[in-house]
Amino acid sequence: MPNLSTRITTLNDGGSDGWEVFYAARRLVAQGVRVTELTIGEHETRTDPAILGAMHSAALAGHTGYADIPGIPALREEIARRVFQRTGVPTGSENVIVTPGGQAALFAAHVATCNPGVTALHIDPFYATYRGTIRAAGAVPHAVDTRPETGFLPDPERVAQAARDTRAASLLINTPNNPTGAVYPRATLDGLAQTARAQDFWVISDEVYDTQVWQGAHLSIRALPGMAERTLVVGSLSKSHAMTGSRIGWIVGPPSAIARLYDLSVTTTYGVPGYIQDGALFALRQGMAAETAVAAPFRRRRQIATDILGAQHAIAMVPSGGAMYLFLDVRATGLSGVDFANALLDAHRIAVMPGESFGACAAGFVRVAMTVPDANFDRALRRLCAFGAELARARKAAAR
Amino acid sequence: MPNLSTRITTLNDGGSDGWEVFYAARRLVAQGVRVTELTIGEHETRTDPAILGAMHSAALAGHTGYADIPGIPALREEIARRVFQRTGVPTGSENVIVTPGGQAALFAAHVATCNPGVTALHIDPFYATYRGTIRAAGAVPHAVDTRPETGFLPDPERVAQAARDTRAASLLINTPNNPTGAVYPRATLDGLAQTARAQDFWVISDEVYDTQVWQGAHLSIRALPGMAERTLVVGSLSKSHAMTGSRIGWIVGPPSAIARLYDLSVTTTYGVPGYIQDGALFALRQGMAAETAVAAPFRRRRQIATDILGAQHAIAMVPSGGAMYLFLDVRATGLSGVDFANALLDAHRIAVMPGESFGACAAGFVRVAMTVPDANFDRALRRLCAFGAELARARKAAAR
Repeated sequence: MPNLSTRITTLNDGGSDGWEVFYAARRLVAQGVRVTELTIGEHETRTDPAILGAMHSAALAGHTGYADIPGIPALREEIARRVFQRTGVPTGSENVIVTPGGQAALFAAHVATCNPGVTALHIDPFYATYRGTIRAAGAVPHAVDTRPETGFLPDPERVAQAARDTRAASLLINTPNNPTGAVYPRATLDGLAQTARAQDFWVISDEVYDTQVWQGAHLSIRALPGMAERTLVVGSLSKSHAMTGSRIGWIVGPPSAIARLYDLSVTTTYGVPGYIQDGALFALRQGMAAETAVAAPFRRRRQIATDILGAQHAIAMVPSGGAMYLFLDVRATGLSGVDFANALLDAHRIAVMPGESFGACAAGFVRVAMTVPDANFDRALRRLCAFGAELARARKAAAR
Repeated sequence: MPNLSTRITTLNDGGSDGWEVFYAARRLVAQGVRVTELTIGEHETRTDPAILGAMHSAALAGHTGYADIPGIPALREEIARRVFQRTGVPTGSENVIVTPGGQAALFAAHVATCNPGVTALHIDPFYATYRGTIRAAGAVPHAVDTRPETGFLPDPERVAQAARDTRAASLLINTPNNPTGAVYPRATLDGLAQTARAQDFWVISDEVYDTQVWQGAHLSIRALPGMAERTLVVGSLSKSHAMTGSRIGWIVGPPSAIARLYDLSVTTTYGVPGYIQDGALFALRQGMAAETAVAAPFRRRRQIATDILGAQHAIAMVPSGGAMYLFLDVRATGLSGVDFANALLDAHRIAVMPGESFGACAAGFVRVAMTVPDANFDRALRRLCAFGAELARARKAAAR
């Protein structure tokens, strides 16, 4: 076999990525063992049959041929309207390109902004695909660290320093955040925007959790002064409409960037199925109430979690402002996130993601997806806390 | 706005790409003018409702969450079985990755095989996206010319020379060929395979028209000695099952390459909708008869065309072995392909693609998609021939 490209053979960091716990849980499930899986960011409910019906009707009506590559006009307009309503930034269909999912949008945004070999900044902790995505686009990922003490919010000063040091072409942010649940406040975004303007880099803003905000409000950095011309916003129907499997998302940005992203779509995807776009249009036209309904279980469980965690001291929670996850500090147990997650799976058949899967800054944390029915979630979280408390007690006893 | 990447701003060759005729036709149609469009490679029939029904059933049954990123096991196995049946090459699901369409497969195959800045060879004439696809993957496209006198078949000697000169990492071939309709004979493929082995480069073999063969037989270069380990075959359901809009295809190749392509899928697409995969599985399980039925109209029209073209001398046809196109030599008219196509649209409201859209070697040719009902096709082709004859006569008269 001839050599494969260096790029594709080095997409992964190499070594353990902390997903062993996830796979161990899946193996147990396959063996018939009952496991409470709090790992993947996916609703336990499926896509609304009405949305699926809209797709099917469109397909039967003949929308099965090549669809407009940048997205059908009606969907681009609907996305633009949605973005305008939520952010107040004037947005038209020329600001929108439809992509086969948010992941494809993240990739395309990096290809659009980064020449090969340049640095693309991202914040640690980070969603598991970020570094590989930057590498796939031919750029070099550079993490800007955050700290638990400040709620894992990025410090604009540190970003500015990293951008200066690396001459970065872009900064990738994510609010509401996966895995931490942080919702970036205005002060943080103002600081990041000021840095981006001063040092003239792109901001790629992953806002796929914008319908899952439990505290405060979602603010898009694109709405800040001078930012519409240097921001590519990544959106998706995966989380807002329980459409993870339908692979439909978008990028919102300056028209001249969208025009070039069209060229990229021609050569990388050739667009998104027309009937899925029709389904997405139907979904978005259901309005805010439908999105609130999809988010409601996570809002409820986050309240359940707040109550449970408030009644104990072994496990701390990073203030959870949004997204479908809890980010729990297990350092009092003396275990790493990986070891805690493995021990919890062994002892209680509860699977959570080690923080280490999401970057070095997340060491000693675990991410808990709030994606099982309330009663199961309540029970699993109580067990997790009790287990943490036992471990912490044992550790204290051993230290005496 | 900060700069966009050089890569995304230079995906196109720049300048005219010969698609003006296509857009001019579309504008006329939008104005209510009746135009016979023989431009795009898309069936006039839509996807079989039974396939759409299988998709919808799968979606309603809950297959709307994240699907296995490299493809659901049953579909990978079915594709492997299909490839084995047609080529005789031992092929298992570990040789297969499902992609959101053939275009995404072409892109991924080049990312997998080409480091940034290296040369990727392709044959001229070529499908319109090829050069942009190679650029999107960060590589440099280099065309190997072919000549009408030899049916636009690639000369292995010229390929060998180009590979030596450029130290190419890959060669992209396409049989049955779009736009020329050539079906590469064994001798050509043997020569290309020998060159690939001797100079140790990858072959990316676009075989999306493998169900549309009118003369001779389709031969996959992967079936030749030593080629399974250095070939990535691009396949798709677009042409074989009239599923252009569903964006589902695949790459078949060595397991270690497929494993790395999985990493790339995680960061570029995150897989293909599960219910579309279920629909594709249903479609493939219909067997050869369904594919023959989808191809039948093109087979019929190719016979119509052979009869019409055989009865005149102004317009010559490149021997059409396969695919849904005729490739017609209009040089006797003294016009370029672009000028002929424009004149034909003006005079007779018949839209065809100029050969120049598909590369320099296709100058003086036009591509005719056999994608309208037989009677319309017959009428349009007769008009085209009569128009060509008039132009050729006028030219001869002027030369006297």
